[in-house]
Amino acid sequence: MAEYWSTLDVDLHLAVDPDSGRRVGLEHALREAIRDGRLAAGARLPSTRTLAVELGLARGTVSAAYDQLVAEGHLVAVRGSGTRVAAQSGRAPSDARTTDAASGAGTAAKSGTQRAADPVRFPHDLRPGTPDLSRFPREAWLRAARRAVNEAPSDVFGYGDPRGRLELRRALAEYLGRTRGVLADPEHIVIVSGALQGLALLGRVLGGGMAMEDPYIPLFHKAVRTTGTEVVPLLVDDDGARVEQLRGRAFRDVEAVVVTPSHQYPIGSTLHPARRQTLVEWAREGAGRYVVEDDYDGEFRYDRQPVGALQGMLPDRTVYLGTASKTLGPGVRLAWMVLPEALLDPVTEAKRHLDHQSETLGQVTLAEFITSHDYDRHIRASRLRYRRRRDLLAERLRTKAGRPAAGFALGGIAAGLHALVRLEPAGMSEAEVLARAAEFGLGLEGLGGLWDTGPKGRSGQNRARPQGIVVGFGSPTEAAYPRALDALVRTLSWR
Amino acid sequence: MAEYWSTLDVDLHLAVDPDSGRRVGLEHALREAIRDGRLAAGARLPSTRTLAVELGLARGTVSAAYDQLVAEGHLVAVRGSGTRVAAQSGRAPSDARTTDAASGAGTAAKSGTQRAADPVRFPHDLRPGTPDLSRFPREAWLRAARRAVNEAPSDVFGYGDPRGRLELRRALAEYLGRTRGVLADPEHIVIVSGALQGLALLGRVLGGGMAMEDPYIPLFHKAVRTTGTEVVPLLVDDDGARVEQLRGRAFRDVEAVVVTPSHQYPIGSTLHPARRQTLVEWAREGAGRYVVEDDYDGEFRYDRQPVGALQGMLPDRTVYLGTASKTLGPGVRLAWMVLPEALLDPVTEAKRHLDHQSETLGQVTLAEFITSHDYDRHIRASRLRYRRRRDLLAERLRTKAGRPAAGFALGGIAAGLHALVRLEPAGMSEAEVLARAAEFGLGLEGLGGLWDTGPKGRSGQNRARPQGIVVGFGSPTEAAYPRALDALVRTLSWR
Repeated sequence: MAEYWSTLDVDLHLAVDPDSGRRVGLEHALREAIRDGRLAAGARLPSTRTLAVELGLARGTVSAAYDQLVAEGHLVAVRGSGTRVAAQSGRAPSDARTTDAASGAGTAAKSGTQRAADPVRFPHDLRPGTPDLSRFPREAWLRAARRAVNEAPSDVFGYGDPRGRLELRRALAEYLGRTRGVLADPEHIVIVSGALQGLALLGRVLGGGMAMEDPYIPLFHKAVRTTGTEVVPLLVDDDGARVEQLRGRAFRDVEAVVVTPSHQYPIGSTLHPARRQTLVEWAREGAGRYVVEDDYDGEFRYDRQPVGALQGMLPDRTVYLGTASKTLGPGVRLAWMVLPEALLDPVTEAKRHLDHQSETLGQVTLAEFITSHDYDRHIRASRLRYRRRRDLLAERLRTKAGRPAAGFALGGIAAGLHALVRLEPAGMSEAEVLARAAEFGLGLEGLGGLWDTGPKGRSGQNRARPQGIVVGFGSPTEAAYPRALDALVRTLSWR
Repeated sequence: MAEYWSTLDVDLHLAVDPDSGRRVGLEHALREAIRDGRLAAGARLPSTRTLAVELGLARGTVSAAYDQLVAEGHLVAVRGSGTRVAAQSGRAPSDARTTDAASGAGTAAKSGTQRAADPVRFPHDLRPGTPDLSRFPREAWLRAARRAVNEAPSDVFGYGDPRGRLELRRALAEYLGRTRGVLADPEHIVIVSGALQGLALLGRVLGGGMAMEDPYIPLFHKAVRTTGTEVVPLLVDDDGARVEQLRGRAFRDVEAVVVTPSHQYPIGSTLHPARRQTLVEWAREGAGRYVVEDDYDGEFRYDRQPVGALQGMLPDRTVYLGTASKTLGPGVRLAWMVLPEALLDPVTEAKRHLDHQSETLGQVTLAEFITSHDYDRHIRASRLRYRRRRDLLAERLRTKAGRPAAGFALGGIAAGLHALVRLEPAGMSEAEVLARAAEFGLGLEGLGGLWDTGPKGRSGQNRARPQGIVVGFGSPTEAAYPRALDALVRTLSWR
């Protein structure tokens, strides 16, 4: 018997197996519905009378089924307000799985099927990966969209160049040159949906292997491996990627090296000038060698002079990857690759086979947003805001929580939207910090999940493998940030 | 010395080499920035005072550098409006390779590097693949975007469910059930960028081979093959895909069959009811067998009752693919898959590895567009318009050009945005028609380019392989359509 049941709140398709007895069948069907989220936490169930009528069951049968599920903790009966799905039961409201968490640079590590588990939500959230989404410039963006869409030729709605709209590629060429020192010809730019897609495209077109920083973002490693390309982890320290390793046997077949030279993710270090030089030399030595520069947060540099893009030193051998994910938000799915001549056609062709081209209305909107300088204004305002947050983070950890002697040190704070709390061997372990944070309702990301080679390294010896917590200070709202910092300070104040 | 310089409007990364003297260094840095396009023609420079402060130089040094570059013609100083980059200076952004044309269902066949050749443009264009882009409902779409983006929670700008926004999945579940008889649970819908991406995702997750109609869209065959999945061509006739072939040896390892049952592309036939039944039986016989229903133009049916989606007969074994490419335009890159339970998690996971999720602002806009019924209104108006065009096409070919005896017959006109002009052996060949069309400035698509097995078949014998011209009556503007038909009539009036 399959029944549709409507209450004030929900329509629910409830399949009651006739073979399993009516009460047991109803119990089972309800349990299933709660478990897989069709009945969300907090959802109100119909009265026993209503449901009995709708399902053609005796009211006592329905009551008995409800009682059983209350006993099991799946339902809560509150006098006067009926029966509801328990808060801890099943999946969160239908937007479960909706987000996020699964991602971002930071949490991307949590792979596996998203569907199985609820995305975890925290009262305080300092997980890295997204900017403050509440500051998305909705009004300016909508105005830009109106201008751009109204002025665009009709072909904007059609199939077009797999590289993306020329309006945007021109705007980016100017913007990237001006702000990041990137030598970008609009013809050599390919608009993609994110760094992830950019790396997957490269994985498809490169013949050899790819070296990728470790720790970095496991989803990125995995996405490249999915294309059949071998990924060789390249360890990282406080001077960025240890590029001298590229001379080793393990890297013999490596054709491209993926680095985050301006602000290593997640360690936060800047690639040392001598290492930049080593990397450039490595690339120049072999015929088909490339550096892939993931410049995911190059716009946000606070203390020192900005480090110009490495691409400016080596334009014919660098793939530059930039993104709007940290400046606007990852939902817009707009990122860009600046490609050397030799890779342009293969990547363009691979993009065409993947999804023809990226969505165009967002592209012309972003082009308008950049050329009107709304983008600069938004970034400048964001930079000030994140800088204040960064300063506040450093201040709070210096004065209110432990000192370095107490077990941690803050690093990687010269740029970007995240910092690394390096845990000293004498202090708490990552697991302990994360457990304490959970007690305070605080979401954090442990470094442990970001190693491609696992938190203990390939040998399982955990040699020189730092423990740490990645603190994303970008994502909370302005109002939520101070309380999130309070929770962080409490978490780290272990003595 | 690398400096970040901000003016009212812009940020500029300017590398001033400290060894070359301050004025000369600044001059050089500016000259380089202009030459390689980082400072675009017309860009306004900061005042000498601002720049001097920001770079820590004397104001006179900056003035002298500006003067030198004005003298060289790189900059222009306009009294009262500051200093700008000269119009002729630096690189001109080149527009070569700008577009497009490369695609659409129709022209997708023209693979190879896009870059080599300019897309061919015709004064009259009846190539299939796109709707009339000039009729994109810009104003209604922008209004929906404003409502949707203003009302959306902030998480719309973040990482989310790889399946796409729940708002859109809910709107589509209702819409598809109502208009196409699709049994769609929002939880089982995955938003993708197009049928191409949908097929590529399936290619990734399916273990066995895929049978795909032939003729169809060669880019689609190729995109699936790129994933490593074997594609077995399934021939088509006037009753749709010849599904009885599925019993043959060549199809032994086939796990999924891709069909266009409502309106075969490009032949235009409808899958015969007996064949639907055969296909359903085939799918039910084996454990992991699926039918993939590409319902690319199911909204446009003119004469008979619309043929309900096959998915309604076989929901647990059908992957339904729908798209906004024919209703709105392919530029929005919004399409949807309705998946059976067993494929949902693998496809969701593959989507996450491919590009995390599709762009979200377009998704919430389309959700609003559907729930406000603007989508229905737009489709209804479009259907009337295309039906008139279809009638006019039939009329013109009946009365003004040759009769069937004169060498051709019109078919596939019950639905969609294209028809097939079948060429009789006694008349002109495809090549002759296309050559004549080119003389009249008319773009058409020959059937020959759409065979996966080539226009002569695998045996090279060309047995029973029809010759024909695919006429897309969707893409011209209303004003251009009559003249395009004139050119078609002249092309076909060979005696």
